[in-house]
Amino acid sequence: MKRISVGVIGLGTIGSGVVKALRDKRGLIAERSGVDMHLAMACDVRRSRGAQLGLPPSLFTINPQDIIKNEKIDCVVELIGGQHPARELILQALKHKKHVVTANKALLASDIEDILSVAAKSGRQLKFEASVCGGIPIIKALKEGLVANRIDSLYGIINGTSNYLLSKMSQESLSFAEALSLAKKKGYAERQSRLDIEGIDAAHKLVILCYLLFSKLVPLDAVIREGISGISEMDVRYAGEMGLVIKPMAIAKKDHESLEARVHPTLLPKSHPLAVVNGVFNAILLKGDMVGDMLFYGRGAGQSATTSAVISDIVDLGRDALEEGRRKAKAAARVSRIRRVDEIQSRYYLRFMAIDKPGILARISGVLGKNHIGIAQVSQKERKRAKFVPVVMITHNVLEKNLRKALENIDRLAIVKGKTVKIHMEGF
Amino acid sequence: MKRISVGVIGLGTIGSGVVKALRDKRGLIAERSGVDMHLAMACDVRRSRGAQLGLPPSLFTINPQDIIKNEKIDCVVELIGGQHPARELILQALKHKKHVVTANKALLASDIEDILSVAAKSGRQLKFEASVCGGIPIIKALKEGLVANRIDSLYGIINGTSNYLLSKMSQESLSFAEALSLAKKKGYAERQSRLDIEGIDAAHKLVILCYLLFSKLVPLDAVIREGISGISEMDVRYAGEMGLVIKPMAIAKKDHESLEARVHPTLLPKSHPLAVVNGVFNAILLKGDMVGDMLFYGRGAGQSATTSAVISDIVDLGRDALEEGRRKAKAAARVSRIRRVDEIQSRYYLRFMAIDKPGILARISGVLGKNHIGIAQVSQKERKRAKFVPVVMITHNVLEKNLRKALENIDRLAIVKGKTVKIHMEGF
Repeated sequence: MKRISVGVIGLGTIGSGVVKALRDKRGLIAERSGVDMHLAMACDVRRSRGAQLGLPPSLFTINPQDIIKNEKIDCVVELIGGQHPARELILQALKHKKHVVTANKALLASDIEDILSVAAKSGRQLKFEASVCGGIPIIKALKEGLVANRIDSLYGIINGTSNYLLSKMSQESLSFAEALSLAKKKGYAERQSRLDIEGIDAAHKLVILCYLLFSKLVPLDAVIREGISGISEMDVRYAGEMGLVIKPMAIAKKDHESLEARVHPTLLPKSHPLAVVNGVFNAILLKGDMVGDMLFYGRGAGQSATTSAVISDIVDLGRDALEEGRRKAKAAARVSRIRRVDEIQSRYYLRFMAIDKPGILARISGVLGKNHIGIAQVSQKERKRAKFVPVVMITHNVLEKNLRKALENIDRLAIVKGKTVKIHMEGF
Repeated sequence: MKRISVGVIGLGTIGSGVVKALRDKRGLIAERSGVDMHLAMACDVRRSRGAQLGLPPSLFTINPQDIIKNEKIDCVVELIGGQHPARELILQALKHKKHVVTANKALLASDIEDILSVAAKSGRQLKFEASVCGGIPIIKALKEGLVANRIDSLYGIINGTSNYLLSKMSQESLSFAEALSLAKKKGYAERQSRLDIEGIDAAHKLVILCYLLFSKLVPLDAVIREGISGISEMDVRYAGEMGLVIKPMAIAKKDHESLEARVHPTLLPKSHPLAVVNGVFNAILLKGDMVGDMLFYGRGAGQSATTSAVISDIVDLGRDALEEGRRKAKAAARVSRIRRVDEIQSRYYLRFMAIDKPGILARISGVLGKNHIGIAQVSQKERKRAKFVPVVMITHNVLEKNLRKALENIDRLAIVKGKTVKIHMEGF
């Protein structure tokens, strides 16, 4: 039986779940994995947390250094989140020859390369399954199960809050504001939901996934990003009528030696496996050269799912399976360049509010045609007595640069009202 | 860099894929995993296979003993399939202190316990990711990613051929015979497709999954099994009208200390994530106490997907991560009993061909009621001038034993023609 002594820093929702699992599931896990996980010490700045979680005083501290400098501890679990002091604590722990397990996606998204390099120098490992979609063992799958595969693209629904919002809008014909208020009431959206709604949380996770997939650290501001707050009921409805559904997606695609990373609402055919991923569920679709399409589906976050991922990482460390640090340092970046927004290609859903008169369609499609935007489908959705009626188009695969130029011209025409709505679409 | 010398026995579709991957992907895998896989020798009874695959004579043999007794080989990959001589070769290899990787589900379904026990005694490992859904790293996920979870149920679409057939019947309104002939033409069904159509292949895989999930070897004949050949176009259509779709499913459920294992066509709501798994794709849905619902989706078989799984197993052995043999031997069976068909509970779709006269529904539902079969939904599907018209019912959750008794009585009534069609249904 291999034994691993664990120190947990940060006893919030996840931290207290981990402490509980370390105690309640120790026997089950030891039997299954041959690893005996042992809680050596837990730390939180709130002095009362120890007693609240039923920890004896000898196992609780308010000083993280009691864990980091503790010679009996093999593995430090960092669950305080944020940049500081999480970064400093993780680096200190590695330098003190501890393995580190973390769920800190914001920190990893900026500092994963630095932290892995310190880990490599110390001969210790950094494990972070819990940082991306806790309920899906995606990092393990990428690093181990799919080791023989070259993966060229990833399509993920990796933010549960956004997915809940768009699912509700689509299933219950709610407006964005109504869906958001429902999500807050149910606890699926925090008061400060900007990180979720604007796609920042998904961008953090995508940066981590890109690093694993392509050995390339994509700077957060190189992730092409659009939030979901601009999606209107009208577009959800029109998409539905065309057999499409809008999902908050994270996409990474490698092409020759360049890479694109994007987070934005995306239309999918209703028959696509990602289209049925609803509510707070997450899913990741990978295309591997050997396995073909593969999809993982599960809870994105929540105490239990994230705790499960942390425990799995601790067990892996106990098994002493990988020499992650040293290995990663050797894996050279294979992608040399990150594509700019202008360069990306996509199909698009476009909605114009246009004057309901003959010849209007010809003018709009004329501008599109001049800019090399091929149109796959057009429909005029409502023919009321309104002056401006919605005209919906689905384009072929077009260059974003060309589309922008076309829309700038169209939006200046007197025959249309307001800014054209454009939503990415994936045909698969 | 860890080095592992591999001998491959059996150079059919998968075997030649593995040999190719060992050569073509050696560098990529070494860089990613820190494991240098090296093909030491390959074996096939067909003397010409070596040259066909471009192997130098020094790397090819027609005698498996040249691999099994070769002191330089660390790992034997068995890909000949079937019971004999696969069983003997695997056991010899383990006794000669080789790790073994196999895709042989038929053999594992009967002998996994014996083979693991020999592996444990020899201190060597048996790896078999490729035996169940090659394109999905499900065994790795169960043993590692979900180590902290208690899993109580599994729902899988784990036979690509059956799924292709039912998908085609549903999507293109084909009869079973038409779908089968199409599948044979496209190479998705073999001439001898009985193993697939009758659910035997799925039962093999389910036995292996049950062993991993519940530490219980379910004898193959204790798997409750129904093939898909009895599914008619009519039932596919009626199900569709009710928002349901028929899928070939493998189900394992643990309840208190007993377990049920079943393979049969099953109705699902169209909105369920498993309902969109079409064609030759496989998927497995697990319910874990910590992660909640988790679904894996990917190609079930095919050269590349299965090869990818074999390579992942070899890499794991190279990493020397697990001491599988010893561990498994200790994990005591936690399920004491396998449920008999009479004991299982399910919802059902029933179709009667009944005389189109008033009072008939009352007689049928009277018999059902007397046998404690609750009815959730009834519809009479067509009202043509035919003497017998289809009546479709969806039951509540009922005991199979009671349903059988009720149907025996109903099928004897003069007001119905033929045997009642019954199809399992999962509501989730």
